[in-house]
Amino acid sequence: MQLLEDRIRKDGKVREGNVLKVDSFLNHQMDVNLFREIGKEFQRRFAGEEITKILTIEASGIGIACVVAEIFNVPVVFAKKTQTKNIAGDVYTTKVESFTHGRVYDIIVSKEFLGKGDKVLLIDDFLANGKALEGLATLVQDSGAELVGAGVVIEKGFQIGGKLLRDRGIHLESLAIVDGMDDKTGEITFRKQ
Amino acid sequence: MQLLEDRIRKDGKVREGNVLKVDSFLNHQMDVNLFREIGKEFQRRFAGEEITKILTIEASGIGIACVVAEIFNVPVVFAKKTQTKNIAGDVYTTKVESFTHGRVYDIIVSKEFLGKGDKVLLIDDFLANGKALEGLATLVQDSGAELVGAGVVIEKGFQIGGKLLRDRGIHLESLAIVDGMDDKTGEITFRKQ
Repeated sequence: MQLLEDRIRKDGKVREGNVLKVDSFLNHQMDVNLFREIGKEFQRRFAGEEITKILTIEASGIGIACVVAEIFNVPVVFAKKTQTKNIAGDVYTTKVESFTHGRVYDIIVSKEFLGKGDKVLLIDDFLANGKALEGLATLVQDSGAELVGAGVVIEKGFQIGGKLLRDRGIHLESLAIVDGMDDKTGEITFRKQ
Repeated sequence: MQLLEDRIRKDGKVREGNVLKVDSFLNHQMDVNLFREIGKEFQRRFAGEEITKILTIEASGIGIACVVAEIFNVPVVFAKKTQTKNIAGDVYTTKVESFTHGRVYDIIVSKEFLGKGDKVLLIDDFLANGKALEGLATLVQDSGAELVGAGVVIEKGFQIGGKLLRDRGIHLESLAIVDGMDDKTGEITFRKQ
């Protein structure tokens, strides 16, 4: 998606250790006009698929998922990272390893909001090791819902997540795939799509 | 807001200990069509105010804030609850006590995304003790930005938060104010607005 790649080149910051900071428009400050264009692109890429629900994970996926959901005209469910007393006991749950935060956490979705008959599109801002999206796919599978695909804004193409999900047979659409970054020059190489 | 009160009566669940569960449409599963109507109502209530940025707090505020921001045509910034390595060191921070989770946490906003010249509307799903919104108001104050007001979807009118914020001189708009709940009958009493 050219508009997105241009924006990443303009406002993204490459940091040591293959860190790509896009917090000025994607995951801390959020440009909702860009999100709407992202939603239209997902609509184009998943045209012809029946989608009844969008599933994402807190926190930074939620904003994108909601704007995308307006375009698909479906509700969003977001998986929570810890069990609070406001969540019913009856939940689907799995463990997810976070490399960013260096820990393993539980993600949960109430059984009320995911189940047989739902046709689910996963949405997230980033795909690197793929642990979060694999966890969401597991929740969908456990619930008996149908997994239609996964839409990701930025995939780090040099990390394993994209391959893991595609090998699992998941229809994955990444709007920008970063194949390389140079923290000395700030240069970012995108995969041709 | 009649549409919202009707929805809370229809789909909200009253639980012991003054818990109002609205997770089927507001803060776990999210009805983005309702969010759009919520956004239009905030636009009506803050008509004539200049707003350049919406500030919310993770996680459940983010979805509402993004849909509202589309209507106001401004970016969203969300305060994060813990410091991760992807956030620059240069942040505004304050402490917030969570009654739901029974702990005190730090909230942070990068200094890049909040400062002099910003005219900020706070958005959140719930107002009870007011700690989260007070924390956000403190971050706005610390940054030198102007606090235009705060928009809340559901205020628990029998808790102290609304009074705290209004006494502080903040223009607070709550779309539904719950003055009482009965967990035996499920009855919910809304304040006339």
